[in-house]
Amino acid sequence: MIETPYLLFLGDAPDQLAAKVAIGIKDWRPENAVGQYRMDGCKADVGLKDMDLAEARAAGAKTLVIGVANRGGVISQEWKKVLVMALEEGFDLASGLHNLLSNEPDLVAVAEAVGRKLHDVRVPEQEYPIANGVKRKGKRCLPVGTDCSIGKMYTALAMDAEMRRRGIKSTFRATGQTGILVTGDGVPLDAVVADFMAGAVEWLTPDNDEDHWDLIEGQGSLFHVSYSGVTLALVHGGQPDALILCHEPGRAHMRGLPGYQLPSLEALRDLAMETAKIANPDVKVAGISVNTQKLEEAEAIAYLTKLEAEMQLPATDPFRFGPGKLVDALMAL
Amino acid sequence: MIETPYLLFLGDAPDQLAAKVAIGIKDWRPENAVGQYRMDGCKADVGLKDMDLAEARAAGAKTLVIGVANRGGVISQEWKKVLVMALEEGFDLASGLHNLLSNEPDLVAVAEAVGRKLHDVRVPEQEYPIANGVKRKGKRCLPVGTDCSIGKMYTALAMDAEMRRRGIKSTFRATGQTGILVTGDGVPLDAVVADFMAGAVEWLTPDNDEDHWDLIEGQGSLFHVSYSGVTLALVHGGQPDALILCHEPGRAHMRGLPGYQLPSLEALRDLAMETAKIANPDVKVAGISVNTQKLEEAEAIAYLTKLEAEMQLPATDPFRFGPGKLVDALMAL
Repeated sequence: MIETPYLLFLGDAPDQLAAKVAIGIKDWRPENAVGQYRMDGCKADVGLKDMDLAEARAAGAKTLVIGVANRGGVISQEWKKVLVMALEEGFDLASGLHNLLSNEPDLVAVAEAVGRKLHDVRVPEQEYPIANGVKRKGKRCLPVGTDCSIGKMYTALAMDAEMRRRGIKSTFRATGQTGILVTGDGVPLDAVVADFMAGAVEWLTPDNDEDHWDLIEGQGSLFHVSYSGVTLALVHGGQPDALILCHEPGRAHMRGLPGYQLPSLEALRDLAMETAKIANPDVKVAGISVNTQKLEEAEAIAYLTKLEAEMQLPATDPFRFGPGKLVDALMAL
Repeated sequence: MIETPYLLFLGDAPDQLAAKVAIGIKDWRPENAVGQYRMDGCKADVGLKDMDLAEARAAGAKTLVIGVANRGGVISQEWKKVLVMALEEGFDLASGLHNLLSNEPDLVAVAEAVGRKLHDVRVPEQEYPIANGVKRKGKRCLPVGTDCSIGKMYTALAMDAEMRRRGIKSTFRATGQTGILVTGDGVPLDAVVADFMAGAVEWLTPDNDEDHWDLIEGQGSLFHVSYSGVTLALVHGGQPDALILCHEPGRAHMRGLPGYQLPSLEALRDLAMETAKIANPDVKVAGISVNTQKLEEAEAIAYLTKLEAEMQLPATDPFRFGPGKLVDALMAL
């Protein structure tokens, strides 16, 4: 669990895109960020107040979150200067970078000396149990995709936000590093040891009120041969009551797999339902979430309308048209 | 890679069952074991020549393999004495115990001092790549089960032995600790980090001669919610050309999951084929392997005959009746 609120470190980001994690935190958990810290030459701006370390501490910030990708996979000396100062000012550090804070001896030494924590959210911070498959109280919704990186996290976050806006009990459950940094908590599922994947998901989505929904962040795809095992662990550990089918039209092949075509939404529905029923025979497909970024608005609407008729399910692009339709469908189950 | 041949350490085994690993090595790779080492009070006997450490070294043994389960999850001081002597005599040590050799400071210190290796086969000894899904040359056969611990390893080992006896190019590919100790090599798949599971299986079953068969050791079950993700990684990383359906009639519920019934063989066939086709559209089910230990011989024959008619597939119990029928079916594909 990462202590909130954060100061978002944007470093010397070369462009706005590099600050994806910080933007995610600002978009989805604005209450988790008191401000942003930008170094000379920073080209990103997430629209929060610029603060130095002392100002942010005074505003209550507890953790400096690296909200930006670094260049060349190295934590630069310029960054280090700020990170060391932050530790000395009383901040914990949190990062989803590939190169771990805990592999930097200087950061480790300073953190130990001043009694602060280094959170590398790519690495599990605890041991998880073997899944026991016992039915848990409360409701769970899991987005599943025809491919990786197709909008599953966005869909779950958007539905969670809309549900909380409507006063429905809901919690987004993060299973990847961006989601963990956004919410301050979760399971980095792709870094969990194989035997404990499903158990980690059970741990992440415990018993809850009968009318509470967990919106579980999806990972991979049942059809993506590199990561399908992670996805099936989510389906079986998550025991979803509802599935959201996620798709992006127009992809030439599965992400990173030139020899593999995307499955149809019918094929995704069938395999996801068949596997999900093993853990929860009452599971239903609630709706379809489509990333229509490559379509003009009129094309997108036509695509969604056709899909709804073909699949007999509500379909929307939650980024473009809002997640309301998916939440309606979830409530109508 | 563990250096062979072995001296099999049976310790103070309380009974024959405790020596399961040693029996597996003796049954499947007798050429890998020069003898057995038994301490006072040992109640197990795998039928190899009793040797002390010096005799075994003289007979060429390179590794002392712990072929027996320990009591209470502790490596006792009596065992330690032998293990330390073995290191000093020039043996590497290999173990599939839950408590790792490498967590015992005295063993680590001696091994380092004398330049010997400690192999804990529950722990991956290397990093694996992310799976790339590229089609590999050669043929692959994967047993899949209605449940865990249902005879998948036995089936693959028996088919591999029969195929080599017939002069067919074949390699058993171990994915669990017993299999790794039997063959000296493999991937401890349940201990691999989630993102790399399928890549580890691709690494384990590389390009080979067009007429060569890998017999891949199965793990878990697509229907077992605790471990299904590991199984799907095997199905997608393994790219099997042939599946063997494995079953044991009469189980009251899935292993360790009292709330879960075993699927039918039809359901196993359908889900295994549906998922395997994603990685290899030409995959076929070759036959059915049934563990009939709880049936009388006449009952077993009647059960298999009925199954063959119902499923339109050859069915046998490879332990009771030999794996010949399954190998015939594989060759006829």
